[in-house]
Amino acid sequence: MSAAPPSPIRLRPLIRDAFAPFGDVIDTVGAEQRLINGGTTTRYHDLAYVDVAAEDGRPLVSIFRGQPFALPVTITMMERHPLGSQAFVPLQRALFLVVVAPDESGRPGPPLVFLAADGQGVNYARNVWHHPLISLGAVSDFLVVDRGGPQPNLEEASYDRPYRVEDE
Amino acid sequence: MSAAPPSPIRLRPLIRDAFAPFGDVIDTVGAEQRLINGGTTTRYHDLAYVDVAAEDGRPLVSIFRGQPFALPVTITMMERHPLGSQAFVPLQRALFLVVVAPDESGRPGPPLVFLAADGQGVNYARNVWHHPLISLGAVSDFLVVDRGGPQPNLEEASYDRPYRVEDE
Repeated sequence: MSAAPPSPIRLRPLIRDAFAPFGDVIDTVGAEQRLINGGTTTRYHDLAYVDVAAEDGRPLVSIFRGQPFALPVTITMMERHPLGSQAFVPLQRALFLVVVAPDESGRPGPPLVFLAADGQGVNYARNVWHHPLISLGAVSDFLVVDRGGPQPNLEEASYDRPYRVEDE
Repeated sequence: MSAAPPSPIRLRPLIRDAFAPFGDVIDTVGAEQRLINGGTTTRYHDLAYVDVAAEDGRPLVSIFRGQPFALPVTITMMERHPLGSQAFVPLQRALFLVVVAPDESGRPGPPLVFLAADGQGVNYARNVWHHPLISLGAVSDFLVVDRGGPQPNLEEASYDRPYRVEDE
């Protein structure tokens, strides 16, 4: 880690097309709809690709309870899961940061920061660099769908120079 | 369907041990906890067994938007999914009924009705008789994790005599 000052990065709205290279946005906007249960329920169908890679992987359903962060937030590291996707869906109204990065020769490139709001969730695709959970403003619970299995499934990388997400 | 009057059934609290024969209660109570992300997140680990049975099944993540019901609710039928589990987790504060039944020679026996509250979700185990979504009081969204695949995965059965869930 150098002593260089952080580089500012801007917040982007979480829009399906913009996020597509990194995974899925989980919300009802633009989703395939099916009316079921005698018309009493609308099913917004198949919103995330759950990828558990190797054959002895299995999908896990967990709840993550995140302590709140406040802006500005400094990004010093990223992680990725080489064997599985990881979905986060808020269980109450919650603002959270969706921080991802393209891979550059096995290291995370400069981060992109999306602001999830209004009940939006995300699914990080397998092996996509992302930051651990950053929820804003209040302790927040998320339903998490990721991979269980015996193999190591976590890779971490530090940035030489940190990034700072500013309030806007 | 006969003209017999409905049989009353009582509401039960949704408690892990009582529900265990039918699947999983998805909440943080009594769950395995892991402190992760440098201490900023608590992971309540592995809360539901996602069962997608045959090898060409895959887990689906969807959102179900349920129209509200009001008590008393009459139960005239049940359904089950022979090839997969089905989890429901509310995405906001929601009251909903968890209606399950033991199997009696390929037909649903008398229903048990649990009241889910305080953010509780459930996972119906594969092939467990249950009623389609009954949320109470307000339109409610649920994250649903179930099975996708080419084979038929729905069986329905009507009761000869309906049951009625009363307010208490």
